[in-house]
Amino acid sequence: MSLAPQLWKDVERIRAAAPLVHNITNFVVMNTTANALLAIGASPVMAHALDEVADLAGIAGALVINIGTLSPAWIESMRRAGLAAREHGVPIILDPVGAGATALRTETCVALLTEASPGIVRGNPSEIMALAQATCGLTVRGRTKGVDSAHDSAQAAKAATALARRFACVVVASGATDFITDGSRSRFVDGGDSLMPRVTGMGCTASALIGAFAAVNTSGFAAALHAMGVMAICGEIAGSLSQGPGSFQLNFLDALYGLLPEDVEARLKIRDA
Amino acid sequence: MSLAPQLWKDVERIRAAAPLVHNITNFVVMNTTANALLAIGASPVMAHALDEVADLAGIAGALVINIGTLSPAWIESMRRAGLAAREHGVPIILDPVGAGATALRTETCVALLTEASPGIVRGNPSEIMALAQATCGLTVRGRTKGVDSAHDSAQAAKAATALARRFACVVVASGATDFITDGSRSRFVDGGDSLMPRVTGMGCTASALIGAFAAVNTSGFAAALHAMGVMAICGEIAGSLSQGPGSFQLNFLDALYGLLPEDVEARLKIRDA
Amino acid sequence: MSLAPQLWKDVERIRAAAPLVHNITNFVVMNTTANALLAIGASPVMAHALDEVADLAGIAGALVINIGTLSPAWIESMRRAGLAAREHGVPIILDPVGAGATALRTETCVALLTEASPGIVRGNPSEIMALAQATCGLTVRGRTKGVDSAHDSAQAAKAATALARRFACVVVASGATDFITDGSRSRFVDGGDSLMPRVTGMGCTASALIGAFAAVNTSGFAAALHAMGVMAICGEIAGSLSQGPGSFQLNFLDALYGLLPEDVEARLKIRDA
Repeated sequence: MSLAPQLWKDVERIRAAAPLVHNITNFVVMNTTANALLAIGASPVMAHALDEVADLAGIAGALVINIGTLSPAWIESMRRAGLAAREHGVPIILDPVGAGATALRTETCVALLTEASPGIVRGNPSEIMALAQATCGLTVRGRTKGVDSAHDSAQAAKAATALARRFACVVVASGATDFITDGSRSRFVDGGDSLMPRVTGMGCTASALIGAFAAVNTSGFAAALHAMGVMAICGEIAGSLSQGPGSFQLNFLDALYGLLPEDVEARLKIRDA
Repeated sequence: MSLAPQLWKDVERIRAAAPLVHNITNFVVMNTTANALLAIGASPVMAHALDEVADLAGIAGALVINIGTLSPAWIESMRRAGLAAREHGVPIILDPVGAGATALRTETCVALLTEASPGIVRGNPSEIMALAQATCGLTVRGRTKGVDSAHDSAQAAKAATALARRFACVVVASGATDFITDGSRSRFVDGGDSLMPRVTGMGCTASALIGAFAAVNTSGFAAALHAMGVMAICGEIAGSLSQGPGSFQLNFLDALYGLLPEDVEARLKIRDA
Repeated sequence: MSLAPQLWKDVERIRAAAPLVHNITNFVVMNTTANALLAIGASPVMAHALDEVADLAGIAGALVINIGTLSPAWIESMRRAGLAAREHGVPIILDPVGAGATALRTETCVALLTEASPGIVRGNPSEIMALAQATCGLTVRGRTKGVDSAHDSAQAAKAATALARRFACVVVASGATDFITDGSRSRFVDGGDSLMPRVTGMGCTASALIGAFAAVNTSGFAAALHAMGVMAICGEIAGSLSQGPGSFQLNFLDALYGLLPEDVEARLKIRDA
C-alpha cells in the first residue's frame, strides 16, 4: 500500500497549523533551513540564547538541534533546550553534523543522546556510524571526512539499527538512498538528485523538515519517513529543472512550496529494508 | 500629491553616495540583508565585536540593530554601538525580532529603546504590540508566536502610535499592509506579495533598507515611508515573476537593483491612516 | 603561453580529490562560500570551536581564515588553527576583511601574519594597502570604507608587493582587475562582471576558492592565479546570464559547477604586471 496519502495528510497539517519549529542550528544553514521550513508551511524560529531556549520549548511544536558550528556556549544551550523540550514532551531531532570528525563533536552528540533523549537522529552514513562506534561498540572502517560522508546508507544500516535500539529512537542515515529505522522496522527511500550533495546544508534541511513533520505526527518513524520522502521528491523535481547547484537551491524551495498530492503519488519511492 | 518623486530622489541619493550601513543583526539574515543593501546601492558592514562597534559609529550613515539571534555578548555590543551612534548623531533603526515571544527579547528591546533612543522601530504587528504592552500599559490579546506575527498592522495601529509617542520615534508595523507613524502623522503602504512571509528575513530586509534611506534623508518618517514603499514595489515586481519563495528571493534582489522611476510612479501605494 | 591547461589541471584535481577546505570565516558568507567550494568540487568544513580547530588541521587540505565578523573568541580560534596548520604544513589563506576600517581588524591581521605565516593573503585593494601601511611603513591616502574598497588594484600594486616581501607570501589585491604577486613575479587577471561588487562575499568566495586550489597545487602563486582566473571566468559567464545580483548568485554557482576546459581556454585573461 502506498504511503503517499499519509504523507500528504502530514503536509496538509503543516500547511494548516504552521507549527513552530525551534532550531538551534549552525551558522552555515540558518537561512536555508528557515526558508525550507517556511516553504513547506511551518514557522521556524532560530534561537540559542541560554536565557530563552527554555521559554521557547513551551511554545514549540518541535526542537531541532544541529551541531554544525559548535562552541561551548552553544552546547550548553542545546543541553538546556533539550531538557526543557523533553520535559514538555516536545519532539527533539538531533543532527550530529561532523560526528566522528572531531572528538568534540562525537562527545557532544553522545551527551545529548543520553541527556535529552532525542526521538529522531538524522545524519549522513559516516556520522551515524561514528555515533554507533562511540556508543554501541561497533567497529567502523573509514572516517568522517569533515562534514561529508565517506560511506553510503546501506553500509550504515547495521550501525543505524544498533543506535536506534541503544537510545530507543528513530535513526535516519541519509544519502543517495535514505535508510530509516526505529530499531525494528526499517525502510529505504529512493529519489532525490545528484546535485543535492553539491548544495551545502541539504542534510540540515532534511533534519529541519523532520522537525516540521514531527510537530504534526506523533509517530517519529512516520515523521522521519514522510520528511525524507518530501526531500527525495522535491529534490527530484528541482533536479529536473536545474543547471547546477545554484539554480537547484531556488527550485528546491519552489518545489517545497508548490508540492502537490499528485507529485507525491507519482514520485514517492519507499521500500522495505 | 504622489510621493513617488521624493522616494525616487532618495533612491538616487543612495545609489550616488553608497552610504555605509552598519548592521548588528542576526545570523539568519546577515547574507540576505547585506545583499539587499548592496542591491539598492548602499554599502553594508556587519560587525558586532565590542572593541570595534564604537569605531564604526564614527563612519556609518546609519546603524541597524536587529535582535534576531540574541545572546548576552551581542546585547552589550548593541548597547555600546547604540550609545556611540546616538553621540555621533547617526540614525538608529531597531528591529525587535521576536519581542513578546521571550522575556529576554522584550527586555532587551525596552533597554535599547530607553538607552539608545532609536529614531525608527520596525517590527511585525505582534512585536510592536508586545513592546507597547511592555512600555505603554496597553493590553494585547494573542501573543507573538516565535518570530511570525499573530496580528495584522491595522490591529497594531494604536500600539504603534502609543509607542511612537512614548519614545519620540517613528514606528513601522509591517505586514500585508504596512502602518507607519511618528505619533501624529500615520500612513498605510499597500503592495508587496503573498510570497513575502514565506521568505525568511523579509522584515529584517525592510529594517536594513530603512537604514539606507535614513542615511540619506534626515526625516525618519520619510525614510521609513520610502523604504517600505520600495519593499512593497519590489515585492510586487518579484512576485509577478516567481513560482515560489526560492525564485522570489532572487527576483526581489534583481528588482531592487533594477528599480526604475516609472516602477515607483506606477506602483507606489501610500494612503493616509 | 596560455596558462589555461595548467589552470584546468587544477580544476580536475579538485574535482577528483574533493580536498577538505577548513574555513574559519564570517557569518555573512558561510553559506555562500561553502556552496562555492562544493560547486567547484571541494569539500568545505566551517568550524571555529577552540577545542576542535587543531583536530581539523590534521585532515584539511587548506585552512582559510576570514576575519569578516570578528570577536575575541574567534580570534583565539583563528590563531590556534593557524599554528596547527603551520605545524602540519597545511596551506593557510588569510582574508583581511575590513582591515584598516577598525583598529581591531588591522591588529588581528598583523598578529596572524606574524604568528601563522599564511602563504597567501587576499583582500580588496584598500585592505591590502592598510596592511602594508601597518607593517611596511607605507603611507596610504584614503581609508577603507567599511568592507568595500576605496582603491583599485593598480593603486595597491606597490603595497601588495611590499607586503608579499615582508611576509614571504603571495598577495592578491582583487577588484575589477586582480593583482597577484609573490614579491618578485606579478600578474593581472582581467574579466569578471560589474555585478560582482553588488553581491556580498564575492571576495570571501575568491579566498575560499584559493583554498581549494592551494590544496591541490603546492605553488601558492599558481594556486592564487588559477583561483582568480576561475572567479573572473565564472563571473563573466554568470554576468552574461543575469538581470541583477540575485540571479547572478545562482548563475555563478552554476558556472563553477559546469565549468569546461573550453570556457577557460576562451576566457582566461592573465597578463604580466
